[in-house]
Amino acid sequence: MYLKNNIRRLLVYRQCLLKLKELGFEVIYSYNLGREASVSPEQVRKDFSKFGIKGKRKAGYEIDHLLEALDIIFKKDKDQNVILVGMGNIGKALSNYKGFAQHKIVICAAFDIDPSKQTKSYKIPVYPVEDISRIVKMYHVKIAIIAVPKPAAQEVCNRLIASGIQGIINFSPTNLKHPKNIFINNIDLANEMESLIYFTLNQ
Amino acid sequence: MYLKNNIRRLLVYRQCLLKLKELGFEVIYSYNLGREASVSPEQVRKDFSKFGIKGKRKAGYEIDHLLEALDIIFKKDKDQNVILVGMGNIGKALSNYKGFAQHKIVICAAFDIDPSKQTKSYKIPVYPVEDISRIVKMYHVKIAIIAVPKPAAQEVCNRLIASGIQGIINFSPTNLKHPKNIFINNIDLANEMESLIYFTLNQ
Repeated sequence: MYLKNNIRRLLVYRQCLLKLKELGFEVIYSYNLGREASVSPEQVRKDFSKFGIKGKRKAGYEIDHLLEALDIIFKKDKDQNVILVGMGNIGKALSNYKGFAQHKIVICAAFDIDPSKQTKSYKIPVYPVEDISRIVKMYHVKIAIIAVPKPAAQEVCNRLIASGIQGIINFSPTNLKHPKNIFINNIDLANEMESLIYFTLNQ
Repeated sequence: MYLKNNIRRLLVYRQCLLKLKELGFEVIYSYNLGREASVSPEQVRKDFSKFGIKGKRKAGYEIDHLLEALDIIFKKDKDQNVILVGMGNIGKALSNYKGFAQHKIVICAAFDIDPSKQTKSYKIPVYPVEDISRIVKMYHVKIAIIAVPKPAAQEVCNRLIASGIQGIINFSPTNLKHPKNIFINNIDLANEMESLIYFTLNQ
């Protein structure tokens, strides 16, 4: 599944707005934000309007007002607990990724089949995969990250879904089978590289 | 920029075909591949046909023939050299990522401003960022990965483009300014998580 582009754009707008606010701006016009986000001013107005956010014809949008509205859309009033399965290279990098905290995304627990990686002394506790169901229920977790090797990914996916997980971000380079009511966002790093290479060398 | 979806689908088909080949299949129908890749059989036929790949009405597609055709499209006859800037958590994980080698993507050099990270004894040599232009020219590199902290990303991007880089995969959570003839594929991990959370909690 590819997630819808208007939600992606709202998240890019949010990023640009935070940057513009840091630079001291208080009010912004759709053409400013569009230029910053590399989209047309019409697209900016359309996207905001779709979510009931209105600017003033000549006075533009107040940045603080926009950020508040986006925080409501993305439920930024409280932390969002997620779990991480697989503490290899990618898993470890994600567990250390500072960008999540700024978005109120908290990796509350990690899991690995390797007993030498299971520890409670690391800043995120690492449990055996058999504990997934218990932890998901304890922390009311809805979202998981899969960062296990390809051969293990489908089994981990099944276990997550059986435990009550509803959305998965999958770093394992394989297309996971899943029921239709479960959201899966695949990030296949080699495929991302390949499509970039394709467009660059074929332009 | 969001890369076009048909190229992404071809890469997913390739992944599924390799898996089906491993399982012992030799011939495949568009509905088999569609089911495996979670797209419709019509879409599979349309995507292949667009790139001049034809199946036989009742005999389906030969998997080896499809894989060869995809290898030609994605220029898989030789290794593709790329460079990596930033050896923090994400950079290190990418430098260890085994999935690239399978796709003939080779990180031939990495760069970091921190002298303690600059070494030639690591399996990928790590140079100071001042050496980017020299190395890009020496290895005829066209593609780069940015994995530096947000405040450094634009400067690194400018330096890469000035050195002759034409395509960039950007893991830094910021929208980079760039000339129109340069391809940038942004992978913002927190935004990927947020859009997944949005769709999961709003279904």
